Order: sequence, then C-alpha cells, then structure tokens
Amino acid sequence: MALLHKGLEFETAPRPFTEIAAIAPDAGKTVPLLVDGARTICDSWAIAEYLEDTYPDQPSLFGGAGGRAAAKFIDSWANASVSALIVRLIVKDIHDILAPADQAYFRETRESRFGQTLEEVQHDREARVAEVAKALMPMNIMLRSQPFIGGNTPLYGDYSLFGTLQWARVSSPLALLEADTPVAEWFERCLDLFNGAARKTPAAV
Amino acid sequence: MALLHKGLEFETAPRPFTEIAAIAPDAGKTVPLLVDGARTICDSWAIAEYLEDTYPDQPSLFGGAGGRAAAKFIDSWANASVSALIVRLIVKDIHDILAPADQAYFRETRESRFGQTLEEVQHDREARVAEVAKALMPMNIMLRSQPFIGGNTPLYGDYSLFGTLQWARVSSPLALLEADTPVAEWFERCLDLFNGAARKTPAAV
Repeated sequence: MALLHKGLEFETAPRPFTEIAAIAPDAGKTVPLLVDGARTICDSWAIAEYLEDTYPDQPSLFGGAGGRAAAKFIDSWANASVSALIVRLIVKDIHDILAPADQAYFRETRESRFGQTLEEVQHDREARVAEVAKALMPMNIMLRSQPFIGGNTPLYGDYSLFGTLQWARVSSPLALLEADTPVAEWFERCLDLFNGAARKTPAAV
Repeated sequence: MALLHKGLEFETAPRPFTEIAAIAPDAGKTVPLLVDGARTICDSWAIAEYLEDTYPDQPSLFGGAGGRAAAKFIDSWANASVSALIVRLIVKDIHDILAPADQAYFRETRESRFGQTLEEVQHDREARVAEVAKALMPMNIMLRSQPFIGGNTPLYGDYSLFGTLQWARVSSPLALLEADTPVAEWFERCLDLFNGAARKTPAAV
C-alpha cells in the first residue's frame, strides 16, 4: 500500500517462511523486505520511512513531521493492541495454509513464542472476537469525524492497521469485523484504494 | 497544556460540576470550556482545533495536516482505550474529593452511566491496574524510537494522553504507571514541560 501510495512501480515476490532468510541475510530475516537498486530495507516501518525520504516528490505517506511522529505511535498501536490480539485468533489457520516445510518451522517458532500449541492458542476464539471490536473502538470514534486516519485521504497510519486486518482476511475465514460498523466500512474503503489492489488477493475461505 | 504550548496568556477558573452548566449554556455543558473574547468553545479537541486555526503563527499543536488527522485518532484512543479503563479504577476517589452538592450529582449521573454503584465500579481495582499497562503498551513500543508522540518534542497527541493520566494523578492515590517503564518516564517529562506547570497541581494522597 505504501508503494502504491507513492506511485512507484514495483514487483512483488511472495516467499515461504523458510526461504526468507536467504533473500538478503544482511538486511533482515523477516518480511517485508524491499529491494530498491542496491539498497535492501527490512520491516514495514523502516520501508515507509525510506520511501518517504527517498521519494519526497511523490505523495507523502505521513503528511508532515507531526504526521510521521504520530504514525509511529499508530504503527505501535496496530502491532501491540490489534495484531497481537488477532494472531491468537488465527495462528492455526495461518499454519494450515502453509507448505509442509513451512508448517514445521511455523509451529516450532510460534509454539515456543506462545508457550502453547497452536491449537491451544486459537481455542475458543469465537469468545474472543469481541476483544478485537473493543481494541478497534478508537477507530469507530475517530471515523465519526473523518473517513481515514490520514484525514480525508489515507496515510501510512491507515495502511498500518489495514495491513494487520488484510493479513487476517487472507489467512483466516474468521470474521473479525462486525458488518456495518464504521471500522468495517473503513476497511472496505481501504480494499477499494488503488483500483481495488488489495481486494485482488482473495479472502480465505 | 495546549494553551501553554501555543504560548498564549490565560487564566484558569476551576468550577464544581454543578456550576458548569451556568458558565456558557449555549456553548456546552462540560469542561473544559475556553472563553476567548466573544467566542466560547467546549471540548478539549474542539479547543485544540480552534487554537490551531486562530493562532497559526504560534507553535503548531499538530505539526501539519497529517499530524492533525492522526491526533484525532490518538485522542480517540486516549478516550476509548485509556480513559474509559481508568475511570473505572478511580471514580469513587473522584467522588470523595468533591463538595457535597457535587457528590450527589456525580454519584447519580455516574451510577446511571455504569449501572453500578461507584463502590462496585471501583471494587477490586488493584487486579485491574495491569489492564492499564496493557493498554499503554503502544507507548512503550513507540518510546523506543522517540521521546514524545509528537517526535522530539510534544504535540497535542501527547497532551491528550497526558491529560487522562494527569486527571488520575490529581484525583486518586492509586498508582497507575509502573515505575521505570518508558511510559512512566514520558509522563514525568510531560510534568516537567513549561517549567513544571502540570506538577504544580499536587498529586492526590
């Protein structure tokens, strides 16, 4: 979404978990990794800052210095308060759509992180969907005043939260957003951006 | 904090709950209320936008258009995810420091809102302090990269969260922030701003 926002041409290359470390070992061992000429940048936030600083004449991802600083908070919120909640609802679904070699890697690393089996982490998840709605309450309040975190048009803060929800949308059939809520409508607006680019990746069934 | 940030001269006039409605009935029935010449503005967010638009040559509260839009999200977060949690831990303490006429008003309106007595709302609060730490996790992550939500210096997003925690500091002896955490250190930095202006209101004991 950040690359589309910047209007830059790019190719995407999905890679299995077990092949990520080989892409650019010196740059990082997680995705996303951006390769731009001789530069390789690891991590969504670092990529956003790199794009903003390297392509200042393209549309801004932050809308000024105050917007960049605030986007760092919003990114931290999307990770700590939303993504950390959602992963516990969909982690077994993610496992199930991986190739066998990735399944073994994913199970081992994630079960070690959670101190539980993937099945235990995801157990009774329907009862915990309400926690996601609660975590997203700030969005529902903000959306009374403006259609995007960026204001009238989206900025990186929108893409940060959107990325978390898109990750869930394409990995798990679990419905996380209650229909007709402001945040569900915002998510649909994000799916429509850039000629429906994000909608082209099908939802998990 | 917004007025101090803008470098504007002002007087404050604390009023009991039961006298707020008489200040400027047409402008609003809650505090804060800002009276600026012939204009009266109700609500912290509306006041911040008014100050930014009316005094554009004074230091910006938002740091640009992206910062203003993001501050609306951060304000919504501080209200929905932090203040809404904290009020349930300190509501009886707030009641106890009010004058008798205000106590009756406060108990009636708040018990109606919560559907519980003030004592029930605040019951077993020590067990729920950990929820505040969890809600503030995004701050601890962000503070690894920058000292304020505004970046190197504070902006309105900082004052929004600070206001909630200052309200608790002056109303209740309950310790909400675990010492030596990044967010506790950020709170101390906010108390130091403008020659320690916010520190002059003593903590509740």
